[in-house]
Amino acid sequence: MPETEEEVKSIVALCQNHGVPIVPFGAGTSLEGHILSSSTGVTLSLEKMDSILSVNPEDLTCTVQPGVHRLALNESLGRDGLFFPVDPGADATIGGMCATNCSGTSAVRYGVMRTNVLALNVVTPQGELIKVGSGAFKNSAGYSLKDLYVGSEGTLGVITSATLRLQPLPSHVSAGVCAFPDLPSACEAVLSVLHHSIPCVKIEVLDSSSIIAFNQYNKSQANLPDQPHLFIELSDPTEEGLRSQESLVKDILSFSSRTTPSFSTDPASIKSLWAARHSTYYASCSLRPNSKGLVTDVCVPISQLSTLMSETVNDVEAAGVVGPCFGHAGDGNFHCILPLLPNDPQEYVEKVSAVNKRLVERAIEMGGTCTGEHGVGTGKMGYLEKQYGAGAVHVMKAIKGALDPSNIMNPGKILLGD
Amino acid sequence: MPETEEEVKSIVALCQNHGVPIVPFGAGTSLEGHILSSSTGVTLSLEKMDSILSVNPEDLTCTVQPGVHRLALNESLGRDGLFFPVDPGADATIGGMCATNCSGTSAVRYGVMRTNVLALNVVTPQGELIKVGSGAFKNSAGYSLKDLYVGSEGTLGVITSATLRLQPLPSHVSAGVCAFPDLPSACEAVLSVLHHSIPCVKIEVLDSSSIIAFNQYNKSQANLPDQPHLFIELSDPTEEGLRSQESLVKDILSFSSRTTPSFSTDPASIKSLWAARHSTYYASCSLRPNSKGLVTDVCVPISQLSTLMSETVNDVEAAGVVGPCFGHAGDGNFHCILPLLPNDPQEYVEKVSAVNKRLVERAIEMGGTCTGEHGVGTGKMGYLEKQYGAGAVHVMKAIKGALDPSNIMNPGKILLGD
Repeated sequence: MPETEEEVKSIVALCQNHGVPIVPFGAGTSLEGHILSSSTGVTLSLEKMDSILSVNPEDLTCTVQPGVHRLALNESLGRDGLFFPVDPGADATIGGMCATNCSGTSAVRYGVMRTNVLALNVVTPQGELIKVGSGAFKNSAGYSLKDLYVGSEGTLGVITSATLRLQPLPSHVSAGVCAFPDLPSACEAVLSVLHHSIPCVKIEVLDSSSIIAFNQYNKSQANLPDQPHLFIELSDPTEEGLRSQESLVKDILSFSSRTTPSFSTDPASIKSLWAARHSTYYASCSLRPNSKGLVTDVCVPISQLSTLMSETVNDVEAAGVVGPCFGHAGDGNFHCILPLLPNDPQEYVEKVSAVNKRLVERAIEMGGTCTGEHGVGTGKMGYLEKQYGAGAVHVMKAIKGALDPSNIMNPGKILLGD
Repeated sequence: MPETEEEVKSIVALCQNHGVPIVPFGAGTSLEGHILSSSTGVTLSLEKMDSILSVNPEDLTCTVQPGVHRLALNESLGRDGLFFPVDPGADATIGGMCATNCSGTSAVRYGVMRTNVLALNVVTPQGELIKVGSGAFKNSAGYSLKDLYVGSEGTLGVITSATLRLQPLPSHVSAGVCAFPDLPSACEAVLSVLHHSIPCVKIEVLDSSSIIAFNQYNKSQANLPDQPHLFIELSDPTEEGLRSQESLVKDILSFSSRTTPSFSTDPASIKSLWAARHSTYYASCSLRPNSKGLVTDVCVPISQLSTLMSETVNDVEAAGVVGPCFGHAGDGNFHCILPLLPNDPQEYVEKVSAVNKRLVERAIEMGGTCTGEHGVGTGKMGYLEKQYGAGAVHVMKAIKGALDPSNIMNPGKILLGD
């Protein structure tokens, strides 16, 4: 639990000298086994490096240590009328969010971690501190090491600070909920919203099974009809602008949903809607009490989302397992939560694994990716070559080999051994 | 002049076998010497690989060969109601735009090449074809090789196709021009627009000297007062939304400019305004007939732009050289055009070099970058270590060494030899 950059450097240099593997650790909210140790070694928890080093409201940037939690950061930034828009749901640390290139509900408007991280301090596997990226919004100076370390899952170095791009808190916000007769019409409405350039902050799709779980788990929310839904958030600098967005979205949604959705600008209702949406993992697991969910995470070209989600819902039903499907429809990214019990028979576990495998393979065949926002960890290592081909994976291995030749940084993650 | 990916592979493999350097060539519009040969070798022109391979309107993506020119692409996409938003001014090729991570006037709204390139085909220095990135909008699968090859300036491989993220043509657009008493009040207005989350498509600042050049060169445009200006473009899915944006922007601008700016929605006027803006390089050079301009390109945290531009304007005046300053104010990126004549005395050339050197060093001291969008080429190689420190440059060299050990790909660019 180092408290300073200097301590990180010393620990890493010591580990390098003795060939001891290091697993960097943030909040432990990652989902693909990133923080499991695949060997003996050191877990380097960044929890004590949790200071906000500077906030620059004029520049719309801040610099933080890796152990700063997302919610604490936003609480602090709010006092300057600012926020950091990447919202993975969990109260992850900024270091961990950088490491997995996470995103979440608001990526459709504000982008992912790579879009919103401007610069990093990184301690290399040799124990040297390097600075990558720049404090400016744009940078074409050499290889983008910043974009290499974001998403490198602790396998290339330890992130010791991050400079982030911030957003002003929006002046006018509203959120709406809309039921659809089926998943394809919900996904069709999303395409239409995107094709009209409506700058949604969030546009989330939930299948019927998610809505059933949602209703049971979030008793304080209105009881939603047992149908696929979209949850949408809009924002605009002016009230008239917000009204005109709402009006256009309503026209589009009512065409495909055959009802007229309503929007609310009440901050408490909006907050409670998203808190409930972010409980979908727990809601899904509650369908099988005491279970833990296997969380899938594929992302496909947006026109393919409808087919992929529908086929997955069919797979889940055919397999006779529980698996609500929901996701960030505006990015083509969705999750299927497959709750597992400690005493599930092997047959059930295999059915669940088969559903996951099929949906990943379908996503890759559709030109998408095995992971939209959770990262590879150990869980997706077997799919990298299928997704990219051997050539690109070989280049990744060459980079890992050049930067961490003794393979001390989070070994056994992202890249399968030869 | 290969015509197929297979031919690129053969040429590169042949060059690899014989240790022959390769300089990939697009349209020749880059500005930092990227396409000069620093040794004997082959210039690999991608001009014959100029096909649009596919357009996927539903997905808002297309895949093109590297020799496709930006204007031809947008003309073709327009038939589907789409466009590719990265606009560096010049009619560059998509391959070249990827290679330099270019951006331009509309980056403030739509981002830079890295934001808008989803996937690439790349022929490695060993002559192998690899696929990087994915057709989905988000991707957390392993090291982001796509973001490494974008901006690698031909030093790591040859880009043979690019999958791009497209935007729907906006429904409602307007543009306005506004004069300010001085540069700081123009830059102050830009900060205020950004702090109000107004989603400008473009927000460009021009100093008095640029306006004088602009007026002389663009006789068909209204004669603008000899003062610093902002040129702004807004767009919105609805007319009411556009009006509300205009109204908020007018309030902000009139506060700092002490005049009420007017906006026009006439497509011909808007087109002509931006055509004139994009002539600023030629307009600046016309202040010294038959000259060619040295184009500077730094980017700083947005609050620093006012100081940096003002200090540069002072430097230009104190040096007694010609040097209009203008730029992409919303990103903190600006250019100073310093026209040089073939027969300029050495003393004049040295004054111009000193202005460039001072502004780059100031930008780096302000936490910015020596190049916001033009890339390093040969012109900025000497600044990389100053900007990042030796550690990050060492990592860049390790990557170059691992991927192109015989250094055949565009040698002598980006990284200074040891």
